Amino acid sequence: MFSERISRLQGSLVREILAIAQQPEMISFAGGLPAPEAMPKVDFTGMPDSLSQYGPSEGEAWLREAIAAEMSRIGVPAKPDNVLVLTGSQQGLDLAAKLFVDQGTPVMVEAPTFLAAVQCFSLFGAKFVEVGLTPNGPDLVQMEQLLERERPRFAYLIPTFQNPAGFCYDAATRTRIAELFDRYDVVLLEDEPYRELAYDECDRQPICSQLKSAPWIHFGTFSKTAVPGMRVAYLVADQRLMPYLYKLKQAADLHTSRQGQWAMHKLLTSPDYPAHLERLRGFYKVKRDAMAESLDRHFHDLADWVVPPGGLFFWLKLKREADTYAMLPKALERKVAFMPGQPFYATPRISNELRLNFSNASLERIEEGVRILAEVIRKELG
Amino acid sequence: MFSERISRLQGSLVREILAIAQQPEMISFAGGLPAPEAMPKVDFTGMPDSLSQYGPSEGEAWLREAIAAEMSRIGVPAKPDNVLVLTGSQQGLDLAAKLFVDQGTPVMVEAPTFLAAVQCFSLFGAKFVEVGLTPNGPDLVQMEQLLERERPRFAYLIPTFQNPAGFCYDAATRTRIAELFDRYDVVLLEDEPYRELAYDECDRQPICSQLKSAPWIHFGTFSKTAVPGMRVAYLVADQRLMPYLYKLKQAADLHTSRQGQWAMHKLLTSPDYPAHLERLRGFYKVKRDAMAESLDRHFHDLADWVVPPGGLFFWLKLKREADTYAMLPKALERKVAFMPGQPFYATPRISNELRLNFSNASLERIEEGVRILAEVIRKELG
Repeated sequence: MFSERISRLQGSLVREILAIAQQPEMISFAGGLPAPEAMPKVDFTGMPDSLSQYGPSEGEAWLREAIAAEMSRIGVPAKPDNVLVLTGSQQGLDLAAKLFVDQGTPVMVEAPTFLAAVQCFSLFGAKFVEVGLTPNGPDLVQMEQLLERERPRFAYLIPTFQNPAGFCYDAATRTRIAELFDRYDVVLLEDEPYRELAYDECDRQPICSQLKSAPWIHFGTFSKTAVPGMRVAYLVADQRLMPYLYKLKQAADLHTSRQGQWAMHKLLTSPDYPAHLERLRGFYKVKRDAMAESLDRHFHDLADWVVPPGGLFFWLKLKREADTYAMLPKALERKVAFMPGQPFYATPRISNELRLNFSNASLERIEEGVRILAEVIRKELG
Repeated sequence: MFSERISRLQGSLVREILAIAQQPEMISFAGGLPAPEAMPKVDFTGMPDSLSQYGPSEGEAWLREAIAAEMSRIGVPAKPDNVLVLTGSQQGLDLAAKLFVDQGTPVMVEAPTFLAAVQCFSLFGAKFVEVGLTPNGPDLVQMEQLLERERPRFAYLIPTFQNPAGFCYDAATRTRIAELFDRYDVVLLEDEPYRELAYDECDRQPICSQLKSAPWIHFGTFSKTAVPGMRVAYLVADQRLMPYLYKLKQAADLHTSRQGQWAMHKLLTSPDYPAHLERLRGFYKVKRDAMAESLDRHFHDLADWVVPPGGLFFWLKLKREADTYAMLPKALERKVAFMPGQPFYATPRISNELRLNFSNASLERIEEGVRILAEVIRKELG
């Protein structure tokens, strides 16, 4: 009865765990939920009635202009015509998959990578080409070999506060990747949902800004800095790709909520927005530091990790071989939720890694949750 | 560089014409734009801050409940679990295409049918099986032959105020279609965006409510009765299809705007909503009647049509063979926009038909536009 692609349809473990994690007694390190107390107030005062009508598929002109200006500020030469407003970043992945992926199309992703991207590309039949990560970014030797041998149609990368691994590609790696992509004419999909959540100095120059000839799409969102419930995000792309992305957007949902676009534009252009971002970074930095201390206290003999310079996650690797996926039910029994490493790999494998979110739980619950989680894992390791 | 499906990617003529039709001096009969003056005021007063967070992929529980209650009222036995909130009806077509359509999958559509459905199914590779329309609904003899011979995976039908043809399937046809679909085990996609816009008595019993075994999806939207700019719609489906549709929705945009859902729920459950619908019907009926009179005056010797008992469109067939697509530039020159028949057919053909929207233009401009359009067409016919 169903299409062939349905055989590859996966649910999202994150969203299943999230449902469990919303029980009030649960300490959740599982999702990437922003902290409600750090969200700006959504203000619809003064919203024009004219936005009730159908709107343009590409998004509102004033929002595209503000986004293009912001992109130019961070080094990506973008005009409003390069901007497509999206109903969440996830929609950008769907449009990109439609644009590029046939059954068996080779697609390069980091190992590990964002699991909803795997879910989306996989649905369309992607054959994953995984490139391993070093502390500076992807393994460049391996990357070049894979580009040469597998000729992926595009590479999906998260250079800034990589999800789940948390680190930032360094400047030299970014430059080298741009050179490689130009040489092999590989399309770059650069996803930067966390770029504003920087707590320490690090390189954040978008790779797409350094490309000379390879086509590119850069994804951004308001979900991590403002309100995810509104579902407003955007992509900025190479002029060669825009006509296709525009038509795909049109076929997907005609256009994004105009009321949502208006509220996000109001926020983005408000005089308080830079101060809001500063407060947000300060707020999350305290939580990150709290989790770092709790991990030092309870996990020092159990796992290795690097303190992430930004984003929302710690990525832990247990010092011994183990299957963290199998440990999840035990942790949930003790009312602590986390994300095991396994679903972050495009090719299924047993993983002794785990991702811990620090943005959603309170400081007290971060300490308590990390302590309990260490107990559970220590016991499981025997 | 692109996926194979991009070779089938079409733009939407409607949306291209809409862009032109938005010039203030243009009289537009082209789109299906609701009248701004008939839209309810969107009221965000009292919206809870908790909706700023990520929400459930299936939609908000309270909105699903209200939709299920409304569906039960019109005869479709639905529980909240059968409801999936969508970011516009167009998204429902995208999800259905993903669920059912491979390259070459036979898909039954009416001839003519909603062109954005053709655009969407075509992208995924549908092979169209077109069933002709009679004044009572699809040609049932032809339909059965096609079901037998072509074994379409699903049929996409618009039984109530068909777009573009404007008429309503009668009760006997609806019952017979349900029997046929049960017998041939064909999935029914029943699209009812216009069902509340009824100006005259007619049969509106959803076909899906009469099915005994065939799977079904019923699409509804708030875009025609409330505010399209918000992008909130829904599908109600057979329990067997829901787990798949849920995961596809998750991969498409995580979830629909929670603020939009809240505003639509507030509207839908407000004590004034039934009166709003009555006013809306009254308002559009006056416009429909005005267009009927103008057509009688200016088109009586040029075309045949039936006054539509509901919806937003007249569907005219010229009395002589002609290509209305070729006439469009001439009409646009005279500042009148309409939709030629051609793009409403899944299989390209020359059409002497045209679709005229009556909801958006003022009464004065309806008369003026119809008069000018008749002049243009009369001249073109020579």
